[in-house]
Amino acid sequence: MKPVKVGICGLGTVGSGTVNVFRRNAKEIIGRAGCPIEIVQVGSRRRKDNCDLTGIDFSEDIFAVAKNPEIDIIVELIGGYDIAKELVLTAIENGKHVVTANKALIAVHGNEIFEAARAKGVVVAFEASVAGGIPVVKAIREGLAGNSIKWLAGIINGTGNFILTEMRDKGRAFDDVLKEAQELGYAEADPTFDVEGIDAAHKLTILASAAFGAPLQFDRAFTEGISNISTIDVDHAQELGYIIKHLGIARIHDNGMELRVHPTLVPADKLLAKVDGVMNAVLIDGDAVGQTMYYGAGAGSEATASAVLADIVDVARIINSGEAAAVPFLGFTQESIADINVLPIEDIQSAYYLRILAEDHPGVLAKVASILSEDGINIESVMQRETEEHQGKIPMMMLTHTVVEKQINEAICKIEALDDVIGDVVKIRVELFKD
Amino acid sequence: MKPVKVGICGLGTVGSGTVNVFRRNAKEIIGRAGCPIEIVQVGSRRRKDNCDLTGIDFSEDIFAVAKNPEIDIIVELIGGYDIAKELVLTAIENGKHVVTANKALIAVHGNEIFEAARAKGVVVAFEASVAGGIPVVKAIREGLAGNSIKWLAGIINGTGNFILTEMRDKGRAFDDVLKEAQELGYAEADPTFDVEGIDAAHKLTILASAAFGAPLQFDRAFTEGISNISTIDVDHAQELGYIIKHLGIARIHDNGMELRVHPTLVPADKLLAKVDGVMNAVLIDGDAVGQTMYYGAGAGSEATASAVLADIVDVARIINSGEAAAVPFLGFTQESIADINVLPIEDIQSAYYLRILAEDHPGVLAKVASILSEDGINIESVMQRETEEHQGKIPMMMLTHTVVEKQINEAICKIEALDDVIGDVVKIRVELFKD
Repeated sequence: MKPVKVGICGLGTVGSGTVNVFRRNAKEIIGRAGCPIEIVQVGSRRRKDNCDLTGIDFSEDIFAVAKNPEIDIIVELIGGYDIAKELVLTAIENGKHVVTANKALIAVHGNEIFEAARAKGVVVAFEASVAGGIPVVKAIREGLAGNSIKWLAGIINGTGNFILTEMRDKGRAFDDVLKEAQELGYAEADPTFDVEGIDAAHKLTILASAAFGAPLQFDRAFTEGISNISTIDVDHAQELGYIIKHLGIARIHDNGMELRVHPTLVPADKLLAKVDGVMNAVLIDGDAVGQTMYYGAGAGSEATASAVLADIVDVARIINSGEAAAVPFLGFTQESIADINVLPIEDIQSAYYLRILAEDHPGVLAKVASILSEDGINIESVMQRETEEHQGKIPMMMLTHTVVEKQINEAICKIEALDDVIGDVVKIRVELFKD
Repeated sequence: MKPVKVGICGLGTVGSGTVNVFRRNAKEIIGRAGCPIEIVQVGSRRRKDNCDLTGIDFSEDIFAVAKNPEIDIIVELIGGYDIAKELVLTAIENGKHVVTANKALIAVHGNEIFEAARAKGVVVAFEASVAGGIPVVKAIREGLAGNSIKWLAGIINGTGNFILTEMRDKGRAFDDVLKEAQELGYAEADPTFDVEGIDAAHKLTILASAAFGAPLQFDRAFTEGISNISTIDVDHAQELGYIIKHLGIARIHDNGMELRVHPTLVPADKLLAKVDGVMNAVLIDGDAVGQTMYYGAGAGSEATASAVLADIVDVARIINSGEAAAVPFLGFTQESIADINVLPIEDIQSAYYLRILAEDHPGVLAKVASILSEDGINIESVMQRETEEHQGKIPMMMLTHTVVEKQINEAICKIEALDDVIGDVVKIRVELFKD
């Protein structure tokens, strides 16, 4: 049987992990694929000693790999937008199947890349781009294919979850934990993508498109990071029965879909709330199956390599059975993908946690409560403690019922205008995981 | 495009759920499959009103459905062994692809059925046979294809998990909760398959074969039910930091594999310990990805229908792309499936929880401790409380380190032979989720 030949572009953490795991598990991987698989060439700016390249051709020119006529599958692991896009399009142009772990690339340029791949009849596989080794793209595109998916919510950035877990368990401040995460190698030197939710929004964009059958719309995703979360909110949320998680949430409505990443209060008894540290998990609600959850390591050399290799096996199985790709890239055929409007954040519905710092005067609570009541916002619970009074100021925590975001924003403006209220009101969304 | 035509045999809970969900989600399902799908015929002993059969031919003869020349895919939902086997083999003989939710059938007759299907070049899909709507067979066969899977452990019987959860949370006795589970429709009138672990062993057999690439060996699985679990053990386990779950565990070693279903102490901080009520979850350890977990409803009409429909979409995609099945039934090609010896339960290694009822005399603990020590068994912790003394007898709870089961059995014989020890020693295995 003709071997399937693989070229890997990029020899960083994931690239070396892929070579290492492939060498270790070659027998099982080939037994599963049903045909020989060979990594024949690796392209990287420079040779590295993080994996054994014996018997593998090395090239400093990744584009030479993408054009190598011997190769069937190009694995793009260089990351980033522009060069990665050019590389992937070159590979497609040369009739290669593509496997990528690049969430930014797929979220931002996926529509164009998929179109090019369809035109050439090749596969673009991107399981490794979301939640590392957890096969959640496959779950959505194939395992839940009988469902109308209503919503999904995921902890899809391990660095952010590690920071929030440490803040909760050890009462540590955000900056302090971030510094440790960087030292541990969890967070990049520039942590913006992780802590500001951009990385999570890339992944959410991909999951939402596969769940609902819509084109990728990263530029429409709402993104709010965790850098403004204080331990005071983490602690009070917990006393109210909630854990703060940085969630990506996508939900379909008749008039469009929600696509949003932000810190979120999750009921403490929910399994998703118990996913701690660097672990990822995606909770999906399908109309037939109900809620299913997929949990595991969302990053790391070999965990991500696991998904890259699963995609290589998928493509090898396709090549080996001599057919066209049976599973459309986003789970739906191109003809059945419909534009779905992304709802502005002001139009979403949510419950809210509010923290209001006020002068410790009688009557402030009454004033706040009347503003909310006049705006039609019901209060679920209130927490205010004299012991928390400090220099004549006292924090007041509230949970509201579900309202339209616009409403809560208007009420917050009025509350902030009160003489007794100091500074900005802290607002964190609360997710109750209902339809 | 030629529609893929489906015939359903069996119109019980899952059969009606499949018809109902298909009718509701037909547009999305067809959009995902990439070709029209039609349920053209349903076979059942008698017509039922649990779903809308408008436009679907009805037959009282399921074998007529299996032979219907118009049909591409036969969905076997009648359950049981013999007739189901004959039905599936008839369908295969007639060149039909088969989708089944029947774990007993696959676990016991799967090797023979797969052989027949390979000979005819048709697919046998059985995602619905394990853990209801959770796509865990797909995760193992495809999503984790890059890994050498080391072990898996699952809560794969919802009835059993419901009973244990109620016993723990409400201090209720086994019989009492079982009666309620039967009234709620979770447990069958004959609950043996559920509470004695046979149902779980069927599912475990399937998961283990797909994980390790071995033929199905249900007759070699070790099975112990939960009917002997008392609230006293549930409570003491919890005080020691563990939750008792009914687990199916499969683990590969150089000399064979473990394949066992039994009540198990699970560390309370483990996510698997937090899976409560009728929910299922499977935790899988792959050498590259680490531990991933798959959680959801393990039974029920529409949850199981979700998996049946995912399999129908998979098969329709295969038919539609005009190819042979790309994914082998057990994830490995037939040539790469190797016989793996199932280790006798006496040869497995585990930690143990022991409860010993003894006369409240000085020196009993010392005698027990010396027996364990002489047999090379280290004690992890001991719990004995004077407040639990009753009529001169006192229970003593112990956790041991990991030893070979044979060793603990020998020590238990010696302990039971002590004059001060009353009745049998209770032994429950403890799982620490290590390699």
